[in-house]
Amino acid sequence: MIIVMEENATDEQIVRVVDRLVNLGYDIHRSTGARYTILGAVGSRITDTGSLELLDGVNKVYRVSSPYKLAAKAFKPEGTKITIGDVVIGGDQVVLMAGPPIVESREQIELIAGTLASHGVRILRSSVMKIGIDPFGFQGLGEEGLKLLREVADRHQMLTLSEINDPAQLPLYSSYLDLIQIAGRNMANFALLKEAAKTGKPVILTRGASSTIEETLMSADYLMVNGNHQVVICESGIRTIETYTRNTLDISAVPIIGKLSHLPVIVDPSEAVGRRDKVASLARAALAAGADGLIIDVHHDPDRAMCDGAQSLSVEEFDRLAGQLRMIAPAVGRKLRI
Amino acid sequence: MIIVMEENATDEQIVRVVDRLVNLGYDIHRSTGARYTILGAVGSRITDTGSLELLDGVNKVYRVSSPYKLAAKAFKPEGTKITIGDVVIGGDQVVLMAGPPIVESREQIELIAGTLASHGVRILRSSVMKIGIDPFGFQGLGEEGLKLLREVADRHQMLTLSEINDPAQLPLYSSYLDLIQIAGRNMANFALLKEAAKTGKPVILTRGASSTIEETLMSADYLMVNGNHQVVICESGIRTIETYTRNTLDISAVPIIGKLSHLPVIVDPSEAVGRRDKVASLARAALAAGADGLIIDVHHDPDRAMCDGAQSLSVEEFDRLAGQLRMIAPAVGRKLRI
Amino acid sequence: MIIVMEENATDEQIVRVVDRLVNLGYDIHRSTGARYTILGAVGSRITDTGSLELLDGVNKVYRVSSPYKLAAKAFKPEGTKITIGDVVIGGDQVVLMAGPPIVESREQIELIAGTLASHGVRILRSSVMKIGIDPFGFQGLGEEGLKLLREVADRHQMLTLSEINDPAQLPLYSSYLDLIQIAGRNMANFALLKEAAKTGKPVILTRGASSTIEETLMSADYLMVNGNHQVVICESGIRTIETYTRNTLDISAVPIIGKLSHLPVIVDPSEAVGRRDKVASLARAALAAGADGLIIDVHHDPDRAMCDGAQSLSVEEFDRLAGQLRMIAPAVGRKLRI
Amino acid sequence: MIIVMEENATDEQIVRVVDRLVNLGYDIHRSTGARYTILGAVGSRITDTGSLELLDGVNKVYRVSSPYKLAAKAFKPEGTKITIGDVVIGGDQVVLMAGPPIVESREQIELIAGTLASHGVRILRSSVMKIGIDPFGFQGLGEEGLKLLREVADRHQMLTLSEINDPAQLPLYSSYLDLIQIAGRNMANFALLKEAAKTGKPVILTRGASSTIEETLMSADYLMVNGNHQVVICESGIRTIETYTRNTLDISAVPIIGKLSHLPVIVDPSEAVGRRDKVASLARAALAAGADGLIIDVHHDPDRAMCDGAQSLSVEEFDRLAGQLRMIAPAVGRKLRI
Repeated sequence: MIIVMEENATDEQIVRVVDRLVNLGYDIHRSTGARYTILGAVGSRITDTGSLELLDGVNKVYRVSSPYKLAAKAFKPEGTKITIGDVVIGGDQVVLMAGPPIVESREQIELIAGTLASHGVRILRSSVMKIGIDPFGFQGLGEEGLKLLREVADRHQMLTLSEINDPAQLPLYSSYLDLIQIAGRNMANFALLKEAAKTGKPVILTRGASSTIEETLMSADYLMVNGNHQVVICESGIRTIETYTRNTLDISAVPIIGKLSHLPVIVDPSEAVGRRDKVASLARAALAAGADGLIIDVHHDPDRAMCDGAQSLSVEEFDRLAGQLRMIAPAVGRKLRI
Repeated sequence: MIIVMEENATDEQIVRVVDRLVNLGYDIHRSTGARYTILGAVGSRITDTGSLELLDGVNKVYRVSSPYKLAAKAFKPEGTKITIGDVVIGGDQVVLMAGPPIVESREQIELIAGTLASHGVRILRSSVMKIGIDPFGFQGLGEEGLKLLREVADRHQMLTLSEINDPAQLPLYSSYLDLIQIAGRNMANFALLKEAAKTGKPVILTRGASSTIEETLMSADYLMVNGNHQVVICESGIRTIETYTRNTLDISAVPIIGKLSHLPVIVDPSEAVGRRDKVASLARAALAAGADGLIIDVHHDPDRAMCDGAQSLSVEEFDRLAGQLRMIAPAVGRKLRI
Repeated sequence: MIIVMEENATDEQIVRVVDRLVNLGYDIHRSTGARYTILGAVGSRITDTGSLELLDGVNKVYRVSSPYKLAAKAFKPEGTKITIGDVVIGGDQVVLMAGPPIVESREQIELIAGTLASHGVRILRSSVMKIGIDPFGFQGLGEEGLKLLREVADRHQMLTLSEINDPAQLPLYSSYLDLIQIAGRNMANFALLKEAAKTGKPVILTRGASSTIEETLMSADYLMVNGNHQVVICESGIRTIETYTRNTLDISAVPIIGKLSHLPVIVDPSEAVGRRDKVASLARAALAAGADGLIIDVHHDPDRAMCDGAQSLSVEEFDRLAGQLRMIAPAVGRKLRI
Repeated sequence: MIIVMEENATDEQIVRVVDRLVNLGYDIHRSTGARYTILGAVGSRITDTGSLELLDGVNKVYRVSSPYKLAAKAFKPEGTKITIGDVVIGGDQVVLMAGPPIVESREQIELIAGTLASHGVRILRSSVMKIGIDPFGFQGLGEEGLKLLREVADRHQMLTLSEINDPAQLPLYSSYLDLIQIAGRNMANFALLKEAAKTGKPVILTRGASSTIEETLMSADYLMVNGNHQVVICESGIRTIETYTRNTLDISAVPIIGKLSHLPVIVDPSEAVGRRDKVASLARAALAAGADGLIIDVHHDPDRAMCDGAQSLSVEEFDRLAGQLRMIAPAVGRKLRI
C-alpha cells in the first residue's frame, strides 16, 4: 500500500499512521518529499484502506498489489489451457458451447444435440432449473434433466455443461457434468464457489451483472485458492443505463481480461442481449475481439421454448452464424472446429 | 398484457398473434383503432414478453399487471406491522438496529450491546461470518458468534439480527436469531430465500446493489409465496458511476417502496456509504424521507475493528446521531425510543 | 503523481520513465523498496496518466494532487458564503429557491410568486426556455419570460434565478437575473461556463446526470479559474439502473461535497425524481443530510402546467413541506426563513 | 398513448381522464375489459406521461408511438446512404475515419495524413480544440488547426472531419470541413445541433456517455427536423460501473440502431476505451457487429502526442489492424477500401 499524507500533516500524525501500520504487520518505507510524505507499506495482509483513509493527516491510500494473485497474468504468463478430453479451452480453437436454455424433454434435447453435434459443437450446454419468481411456470427437470443431458451428450460424444445454483445440490449434480457453470448472480456466493472448487471440474465463472472485472478475477482467485485452477471467465453483460437490452455486453472485457489474467475468457451473447435477433452480431463481435469461446442458446423451435426462447437462435440461424464465425476466426489467428 | 401491433400489421399477422396467446391460455380482447390494433391479453401465466415482441407485426408488448402480487400495496393497503415481542417494525416508532459489523469476542459484543441497550436500542445486529476474498484474514466466529450474540442480547433484553448466507447453515443459525437478514448479494439466491421463508421468522431483505426496486419487491414476493409474510425491505445502496462511495444510497427508494408496497422499509447507511464520517448525514436523511428503521454499525473502537471499522460509528458518534434523530422524527410523524 | 513500477521492472525501464517525466517538467523522487520502485513526480502540469501507464515496466500511476484546486476545501477551509442582498447561501439559513418550472404568463408567475413570497421564499426560480425535442410544443417565452420574472420578483422583493443554455444568449439573459443556473447537461459546456463566469453573478452549477462528484468540482474550478468564485453546487440526481425515477438523487453527495469543498451545496429533488408525490420526502432528506438550500418546483395548478407539472408541488403541498422543513432544520443546526 | 386504469377505477375517474385527454387534443378509444379499462389516445402532441400517471385511477401510461419519427426505420426502410464525393457512408464499403486526436502542427498532420492516405483512408479526422479543465495545457490551434487540416486533406484528396463544440464558432469552423462531429457531451446541446443542421453538411452525432439509444435517435431526429437528413450515429461508449476503461463500448448499439433506424452507425473505439492496447480488439468487434465505419485515433508518435496519446494507435498498429479488418469485412458482407 501507498499512504499519501496531507501536505500539512504533522510529524505526530505521520508517526501515528506508521505505528498503526507496524501493528498491522507491515514493513514501512517512509519517503519525505518536498510537499508530501509518502509511506510505502509492505505486508501480506489485506487491510481495509478505507479505515486508514479516516486517520488524521492521511490524504489517500492506494492498494498497489493486485487484489487477486493466482488469477493474475504474472502467475502464469504463458496462459492457461483447459483440456477436457480432446477439447481445449484457451488454445487456438475457438470453443462453442451450445444447447437449449433449459432441458425440456428427452426428445427436445436429443433433437437439438444431434443437430449441434453434426455441426461440430462439442460442448452441450443446458440448464435444468429455471431460477425465477413465477411459482406456477415450468421449473425445470432438475436431476432428471441432468441425466438426459448426460445420456444424450454421451450418445453424440459431447461434453456436458450446466449451471448449478445451490451448494447443497452441487456434489450430486456435478457428477453428471464435465464442466460446471456458476451464474453471474452467484459470482460472490462463496459457499457455492467452495463446493465448485472441490469437484476439481473446470468451472465457467460468469461475471455478475454489477461486478467489475477486478471483482470477477477476485472470485476466480477464490476458486483457485480453494484448489481448482481450471477456471474460465464468462462475460455476459453488465447492467447499465441502457434498457433496450437486458444487460450491456462489455466487449472490452475480452481484451482486458486477456491482459490482466492468464485464464481463458468466453462470451455469452444470448444471456447479455436477451433477444435472438442481436445474438449473431454480438457473437461475431466477441470472436473478433479475441474470445476463447462462446455460449449460444439454440432451440429447434424458439417460439415454443419453455424458457428464454426470445434469446435462442433457431438451428438455421445458428448454422448461418457458424459460417460467419468460420470466416472471422483467421483474422484473430484462431480456428473454429464447426 | 397489452400487445400493440405495428401500424402496418396485416390481419393475418394479428390472427397469428391471437392464436399464440390463446394457446398460452389467455383471453383476448381485440381493439381496432384508427392506426393501431391493440390486443389485451388476460391470464394468470407469466409469459416472456420478449418472445412475443419478436413475432411478425408486433410493435410492443406491455405487461400491465405487477410482477409482484403479495408484496404490492393493494394486497394489504393498511400496511404491514411486524411485531417481535414489544418491538414493532412499521408502526410509529422508528426502529434502530445496531451493533458491531462482526462479533469479535464476548468482551466486544458485551461492551457494545450494553451501551446500545442503555440508549434504548432493542435490536442487536452483528454478523458472524466475514464474507470475502482474503483467506488469511479474520473469518468470523460462525455459530460461536451467534451464541455470544444471543447470550448478550438476552442479558440486555434485546432481540438478535444477523445475516445468513448459506442455505445449509440457515436452519441451525436461525435458531439463535429473532430476525434474519438476507444480504443484498443474496437477494436473488432463491435456495436461501426458501430456507429463510421456512423459519417463519421476520426477514430483513436487503436490496441488491444492481437490483431495481421492482426486482426487490419480486424477491419479497418470493418469500411471501413461500409462506413468510414478515418481510422488511432494506435499502443499502446501488452501484452507480459515482466511485467516492461504495454504493449510492437510493434515498428515493424509501418513499417509492412506501407507495408500491405495504412492507416496512428500512435503510442501512453504513453499508451503502462505507465511510463513518458520512453515516450520520445519511441516517438523518433516511429518517426524514420516511424510513421505518435504520441499521447502524457501531463499534467501541472503530479504528481497531476487525471488519468494516471504516463504516462504524463510535459510541459517541452514535449518541450524537441518536439525539439528532430524536429531533427529526416528529417532522415525519414518528417517534424514536432511544 | 506516484508511479509504481512493476516488481520486475528493469533499471533501464525505470530510467526511461524518469527521463520522460523530467522532460515533462517534473521533479522526481525515486524510492526503491524491497519489491517495488516508486517514483514520486512533482510538477504543475496535468499529465495524462493513461499514457504513462502504457510505458514498459509501469504498473500503476496515481494522481495524488486533487484535479481541482480552487474548489477544494483547503483553498478556503472556513467555507464560502454567497451574499446577494440580504440572502446568504452557505450560512445558517437554509435557502429555498422555488417557482414554476417555466414562466407561462404574467398571471401565472405573479400568482405563484405572490404565494411563495408570502411564505418567505426569497429566490424566485423559473425557466424561460423549454429544452427538448418536441418542436410543436410550448417552447417558453425566452427573453419576454425573463422580463416577467424580473418584474414580478421586484414587486415581491425577491431575487431571480433561471437556467441559461446558450453562451450567445447568456450576456443578455443574465442581465435579468440575480443568480444564473447551469443545467446538468451543460456542466461540461465550457463555452457556456466561461460566459457565466464573466457575468460575476453567483452561479448554481448543477451536477450532470452522469458526472462524478469530482468532475462536478472540476467544473466549479473552471468557473473559479475564470474569475467567478460565487459558485453553488446543485445535486439533482444521477442516472442509474433504477428506472422508476428519472434520476437517482445522490443524497450522499451532500456530505461528501461538504467535506471536499468549501462551496455551498443545494439539492433539486423535483428534477431528480420527476414525480411530485416523492418531492417532499426527498426535500426533507436533503435538509436532514445538511444541504444549504433547495430548489423546488411549485405550480398553482400542476395538472395544467405547460411543462414538468408532474414534478411540481401544488401550493398546498409546498406549504405542508415548508412546515416539515422548519421542524427538521434545528436538528442540523440550521434555520429556515419560511 | 395507452392509459391503463386501475382495476378498481371508478367511472367518474375514467371520465375525468378522458376529459383531460380530449382537452389536450387527443381522440380517445375506450376499451372496457373484464378487469381493466384501457384508453387509447391518438394525437400529435407529445404529452408528459408522468403527469397523466398522477391522475386518480390511472395505473400506467405507455407511449406507443416512437419518440423519434424521422430517424426511425419506418421513415426510410431502405436505409440512408450518405455520399460525400466518392465516399459513401452506409453502403457496402466500411468507412475508416482516422487521424491524430488533435492537430499539433503542420508537420504532424502532414506526416500522419500522408501515411493514412497511402493506406486508403479517405476521411481525415482531428480535433483542433482541447476541451478540458487544465488551463495551462495545450488548448489546440483552433481555426488555424482547421486550415492546416483542410490544406493537408486537400493535398491527399481526403475529406475533413472535426468536432465543433461552440454554436457561435460553428458557422465559421464548418466552412473548413466536409463532415461535422458533435461530441457525446453535446448530444443534447440543442443550440449546437440547430447550427449544425443549418450547415447542410453531414453530421456525425456521437452518443452521450449517459444517453440511451432512444435519446440518441431523438437527437438525430432533432437534426433532421431542422432540415439536415445526413446524420450518422457514432457509438463511443457509455459510463457504467466498470472503471477499468473510460467508458464501456456498447457494442449491442450497432445492431440495435441498425434495426431501429435507417441511419448509418459507426463506432469510435479509441474514445470509448481510452487505451491504445484495447483499440484494435474493439475495432474488429465493431466491424464484426456490423458497423458502417470506424473512427480511429492514429499518431506517428503516440507517446509524445499532446493529447490523448494513450488512446492513439501508432502507424504500425493501425496498419496491422487494417489488415485484420480487411479479413473480417467479408464475413459481414462488407468491403474495406484500405
